[in-house]
Amino acid sequence: MRVGFLGLGQMGTGMAGNLLRAGHEVTVYNRSPEKARPLAERGARVASSVAEAGANPVVLTMLADDAALESVVYGRRGLLESLAPGALHVSSSTVSVAISERLARDHAAAGHRYVAAPVFGRPEAAAAGKLFVVAAGDPDAIAEARPLFDAVGQRTFVVSDRPADANLVKLSGNFLLASVIESLGEAFALVGKAGLDRSQYLDLLTSTLFDVPVYRNYGRLVAERAFTPPGFAAPLGLKDVRLALEAAETLRVPMPIASLVRDRFLTLLARGGENLDWSALGDLARQDAGER
Amino acid sequence: MRVGFLGLGQMGTGMAGNLLRAGHEVTVYNRSPEKARPLAERGARVASSVAEAGANPVVLTMLADDAALESVVYGRRGLLESLAPGALHVSSSTVSVAISERLARDHAAAGHRYVAAPVFGRPEAAAAGKLFVVAAGDPDAIAEARPLFDAVGQRTFVVSDRPADANLVKLSGNFLLASVIESLGEAFALVGKAGLDRSQYLDLLTSTLFDVPVYRNYGRLVAERAFTPPGFAAPLGLKDVRLALEAAETLRVPMPIASLVRDRFLTLLARGGENLDWSALGDLARQDAGER
Amino acid sequence: MRVGFLGLGQMGTGMAGNLLRAGHEVTVYNRSPEKARPLAERGARVASSVAEAGANPVVLTMLADDAALESVVYGRRGLLESLAPGALHVSSSTVSVAISERLARDHAAAGHRYVAAPVFGRPEAAAAGKLFVVAAGDPDAIAEARPLFDAVGQRTFVVSDRPADANLVKLSGNFLLASVIESLGEAFALVGKAGLDRSQYLDLLTSTLFDVPVYRNYGRLVAERAFTPPGFAAPLGLKDVRLALEAAETLRVPMPIASLVRDRFLTLLARGGENLDWSALGDLARQDAGER
Amino acid sequence: MRVGFLGLGQMGTGMAGNLLRAGHEVTVYNRSPEKARPLAERGARVASSVAEAGANPVVLTMLADDAALESVVYGRRGLLESLAPGALHVSSSTVSVAISERLARDHAAAGHRYVAAPVFGRPEAAAAGKLFVVAAGDPDAIAEARPLFDAVGQRTFVVSDRPADANLVKLSGNFLLASVIESLGEAFALVGKAGLDRSQYLDLLTSTLFDVPVYRNYGRLVAERAFTPPGFAAPLGLKDVRLALEAAETLRVPMPIASLVRDRFLTLLARGGENLDWSALGDLARQDAGER
Repeated sequence: MRVGFLGLGQMGTGMAGNLLRAGHEVTVYNRSPEKARPLAERGARVASSVAEAGANPVVLTMLADDAALESVVYGRRGLLESLAPGALHVSSSTVSVAISERLARDHAAAGHRYVAAPVFGRPEAAAAGKLFVVAAGDPDAIAEARPLFDAVGQRTFVVSDRPADANLVKLSGNFLLASVIESLGEAFALVGKAGLDRSQYLDLLTSTLFDVPVYRNYGRLVAERAFTPPGFAAPLGLKDVRLALEAAETLRVPMPIASLVRDRFLTLLARGGENLDWSALGDLARQDAGER
Repeated sequence: MRVGFLGLGQMGTGMAGNLLRAGHEVTVYNRSPEKARPLAERGARVASSVAEAGANPVVLTMLADDAALESVVYGRRGLLESLAPGALHVSSSTVSVAISERLARDHAAAGHRYVAAPVFGRPEAAAAGKLFVVAAGDPDAIAEARPLFDAVGQRTFVVSDRPADANLVKLSGNFLLASVIESLGEAFALVGKAGLDRSQYLDLLTSTLFDVPVYRNYGRLVAERAFTPPGFAAPLGLKDVRLALEAAETLRVPMPIASLVRDRFLTLLARGGENLDWSALGDLARQDAGER
Repeated sequence: MRVGFLGLGQMGTGMAGNLLRAGHEVTVYNRSPEKARPLAERGARVASSVAEAGANPVVLTMLADDAALESVVYGRRGLLESLAPGALHVSSSTVSVAISERLARDHAAAGHRYVAAPVFGRPEAAAAGKLFVVAAGDPDAIAEARPLFDAVGQRTFVVSDRPADANLVKLSGNFLLASVIESLGEAFALVGKAGLDRSQYLDLLTSTLFDVPVYRNYGRLVAERAFTPPGFAAPLGLKDVRLALEAAETLRVPMPIASLVRDRFLTLLARGGENLDWSALGDLARQDAGER
Repeated sequence: MRVGFLGLGQMGTGMAGNLLRAGHEVTVYNRSPEKARPLAERGARVASSVAEAGANPVVLTMLADDAALESVVYGRRGLLESLAPGALHVSSSTVSVAISERLARDHAAAGHRYVAAPVFGRPEAAAAGKLFVVAAGDPDAIAEARPLFDAVGQRTFVVSDRPADANLVKLSGNFLLASVIESLGEAFALVGKAGLDRSQYLDLLTSTLFDVPVYRNYGRLVAERAFTPPGFAAPLGLKDVRLALEAAETLRVPMPIASLVRDRFLTLLARGGENLDWSALGDLARQDAGER
């Protein structure tokens, strides 16, 4: 399949690599072009503009946030102008429900097709093609994009025919992960200040109630305070919880743990955590308990 | 092994049954004696007083709360008076750190041995001998009680030589479970009000990030609002979170999610949830979102 | 002084009336023109467009929210186009810090002057000319607008020379008011469920620690559940707390009570409180305590 | 009137002094006797035991907490044993609802009378006889104690005929004060990080919405970070909020701001605030905002 791919961060690079490995003809574009080199060596064409990447029947975007996506789509010679009639935009970025609704509307008006397909998984999973894809949109468009999803992920979930629903599910998932980090952080603060060994405690938890990688991995990061380099940086964590809260506000749904986690992120960033992994959230309970 | 067993609620009945099945000589006692009958039919001796059950080299207690444990130990002709010198009290109840410290002190002064060994698992796990046992206390005493732990549980974790540490770990675990219920409740409230199907959403979560029975089981209870009959009643959930907060206050550890969950339990009970499963906690976000 | 006045809601009508009473030549504009009639009878000129009201040396806007202000300033033939060079825009609306910063920038670029001067006080205070004015911006511009402030308010506070600071102070004040309502609501829920009379309790509080109209007035509304008609509607309360939280997020300042109050507003609105006074916030603790 | 007075802390010393000034015959008792000397110089008799002070027709206690009160009443040769039949115990300590209910029961059984009469006011108000007295209990007993209340306070409020109601009102009042401190702390954190002067901001608040000593005094302490010496120490603040939460739990009333404030106190104490004034609570938002 001929695919344009925009956004070569940690996640996007892994995903584009797996598209190449699966035999697709991939044209990559990134604002800072040096990120494209390793993929070029593996056979990717390198576009020098958004519009050039946009001249493909399917275009996948994997960008950092709403602003980046907005600029790529709505900017001068952006996707809204450069996609051919009937072309398909697959948006895998973790962005707001609001921008996804806007894209759905504007792509439809421009005669394009649009699917939201955010993914679960950290950079290692992206590199290994082991992501989980959460797709929503027109069933035919999803079916057409299926080979791409199969190349980047281990499983695809089709949520509904409204693209923004996939974004909501993704945001809710990141909220749940942040809740896990915060609650583990509180439990560690408690047993740690009582003098118990955090790693043994984590081993007990993950051998019994919480025998699942999410608890094992985030638990280890928090227990060992291994927050750098970031696999997923704290400001992105704040962004996702804020987007979940925005969607919840629109729907009139109070989410008190999400509010609490948002406040925690602000403290983390205010104390200099801009470049830490978002799991550093789980260290604040320990700090509030007076431990250094 | 000759064992006295006090406390035949849902959990205790399953545990005592597994002690019998493993060939131990079990003398059971329960305040309301009719609960002892099924076990008597399976070979248990039935004691007519705490002291009679206490006349065994090992005595295991599985009681509802601090008050019940206090009455059994400190009451007239209670265990503190009736245990023989050198006898071993194994306390599996989910009780406060404070009472466990008090028991450690008073049993030692009376020449008894004392191990705290609370368990993780719902009544079905107790019936199946699949509990997880969290033990703390003197290593020799734990070694002696090991055959009992093997009979009731699938695995035993030895936490430390201070009995109360096991109680702290147990309370922290129940706090983590309550956090899971609350955070799932908030996520369901969000996606549910957006019109997505909660059960499909749960299936997605538990096929990806949260592929573990705790999320699957509590998620199902919350998604289906299946809160009755209670496997673990809401007032007991409140009790455990309160005990975690009390231990945390003594240690000067703020736990904001625990505070939030405590408030939720109060709302649940104030609205008539005394006889619901504690997972009904997860329905309050939906109610606060205005859904009926 | 010749003044254009845009925005004739409950607050704006009172303010414009006091400008007339003080002898100023006021040209009023409101999107729904019937609101202008009573003022016309008192001597106001009625403009038929934003631009017509904007053709004055000083223009005061008192609009409901960012969107209304944005449309009046940036819309076609809005104030940005219609103000004369050197004209002064005084913005008294309770709006975001972000839009105030944007107005400061864009008015300066267009050769206009700009002062933010939000006010404290409910509609009765606006009608009586007893508002408190919180002004920020260029000192000369503030001096020039001073006769207007004197006409609508009992006292003017000059905060700084950055207009957005006045908006921040205003938002923080509304946050403090919402905190008062919520905390009173919790205290009432407690003593009320214990069987004490809420009004007597309020009388005690406001005769001792809290002898000030804010507690007396909001306390009475909450104690008597007198939430309709709204003096300040719940959705506006949510808006202001959200704007405070947005400003706080930009500055990396966690405000946990503000987060809690925001969640309360969402519950209030989700349960049908769109048309209630924002003090209905203070009834939720009572509801959560299971009282009808 | 002949009065026994037990408890000569900052508050008690001021109160006993005012009883003397009003002409009452006061017999004082304090565990550490040197605190009694200044009062002896002003005419007080000094008792050398609780029982000796208890040999008066009216006995007023002003003790630090439940434990101190419990020891004075229930200890060997405590008030329960030493009060004469028909004697009146006036308890002004800020203690739990639970202990007040227990005293009511046990004094009645012993043939004593019992009134709870906690007070509002800091040590300066105690010294000046300007406290507010909140009394509950048998109306005749309150009438009899009235001259004492008039001597220590500027006004007495009779709440109900159940003594514990006065304790509940007192605890709820301290909860409201803690809410004021926390919310001011958050507002200061916001405007302070934006670069505004906290003291000017406080002046604005207390000249407009919050023109009342509570805001002025606590606001100044927080704005100037003047937390030592403590007028009311942080551990006592934690105690009172915890007692409010305990009473609320018994009544099934969730109080989320109280929960939040309790967590804040734990952080304050964990970071070394044991000897700070409880208004130091209001500095935590600033610290969480990353300011030193």
